[in-house]
Amino acid sequence: MARARVHNFHVSLDGYGAGETITLEKPIGEAQGLFAPFDGRFIDGLGGVDAPITLDRALTTTWSQGIGAEIMGRGKFGPQTGAWTDDEWRGWWGDEPPFRTPVVVLTHHRRDPLHFDNGTSFHFLDATPVEALARAVELAGGRDVRIGGGPTTIRQFLAADLVDFLHLVTVPLTLGAGVSLWEGLAGVEDRFTVESVTSPSGLTHQFWNRVTSG
Amino acid sequence: MARARVHNFHVSLDGYGAGETITLEKPIGEAQGLFAPFDGRFIDGLGGVDAPITLDRALTTTWSQGIGAEIMGRGKFGPQTGAWTDDEWRGWWGDEPPFRTPVVVLTHHRRDPLHFDNGTSFHFLDATPVEALARAVELAGGRDVRIGGGPTTIRQFLAADLVDFLHLVTVPLTLGAGVSLWEGLAGVEDRFTVESVTSPSGLTHQFWNRVTSG
Repeated sequence: MARARVHNFHVSLDGYGAGETITLEKPIGEAQGLFAPFDGRFIDGLGGVDAPITLDRALTTTWSQGIGAEIMGRGKFGPQTGAWTDDEWRGWWGDEPPFRTPVVVLTHHRRDPLHFDNGTSFHFLDATPVEALARAVELAGGRDVRIGGGPTTIRQFLAADLVDFLHLVTVPLTLGAGVSLWEGLAGVEDRFTVESVTSPSGLTHQFWNRVTSG
Repeated sequence: MARARVHNFHVSLDGYGAGETITLEKPIGEAQGLFAPFDGRFIDGLGGVDAPITLDRALTTTWSQGIGAEIMGRGKFGPQTGAWTDDEWRGWWGDEPPFRTPVVVLTHHRRDPLHFDNGTSFHFLDATPVEALARAVELAGGRDVRIGGGPTTIRQFLAADLVDFLHLVTVPLTLGAGVSLWEGLAGVEDRFTVESVTSPSGLTHQFWNRVTSG
């Protein structure tokens, strides 16, 4: 059965996963420091990247394995709000979005799908987490679904108990403000087994696996 | 440039990577306990395996990423010694060897190549580590080469300074006898940066990256 998986989700020590305001210049607001340790070159595997294979990088590579679709919040797709007035905007990633699968973008505002040559497509959907996941499972063709963030989206899926696996990366810095991953989720860990390991780099990696009944 | 990588190499606390005698019944001799923690289902990725994604399992999945060929010692291919009198023997793995790339098998005895439908092929070669690596790099078509073991083979490639990356898994058990990974390699760590992290399962994972000049 297709699982819903979160990968490489970075949070600060005070629990923030993004800054408060997303702009074209600052895709994750004032939280850039969160991604300083992140080397996106590794999300599609170790091949072809001529750099040491550290623990952090090995773990980063699990991002795409067995994934057939992603779900993302609108803020991950772009800085706009309200109705889509700028159809020229095709995401932050240029002609080669790294996803290479269908992506469901959660938005209250209608827009036609976008298709890219590398297998990425964006499908704009006004839906609850349950509905969005059902659509993504269809699009994933039997593979797993990645819940891609941002923090508000992850939080909604955690609250709805729809996340099967969460790879959380705690970055040893404090932001003081931003979008909290944990707000309203007190006790959420009770539904998971949690492994923690701290990398020599100072990052703490956690592997949350949902406890399944039976 | 193609790298030579070792993955998922399990050793005991006393440094043994296999038992002393390989038989048809005991492919790694008296060292089966070494592989008790190993779940081979994960070597080709997380997709399709309905089991918790633990740290150990996430790391296992890096095995095939960007790999275009493997080099293995004869003992990993089969329990026979001396000239090939049994051409019926096609390895331990049946019709679906997990490699799915060309594999160079080091042997002093001539044998024609074997080909499998899933992309695996075995090429028998009487060669030094340098020669074997050159042949594997050719076969790998620009991807990396995995040095697949057993311990004698890993040791030879380490001694010849041909290993770029080593993912070592120390299993908390003692064997008392077997094939040592470390014999004759005193100080080998000086040529690497080494990260260590201990998994909640009790396994210690090390990431050795060769220090490159310049």
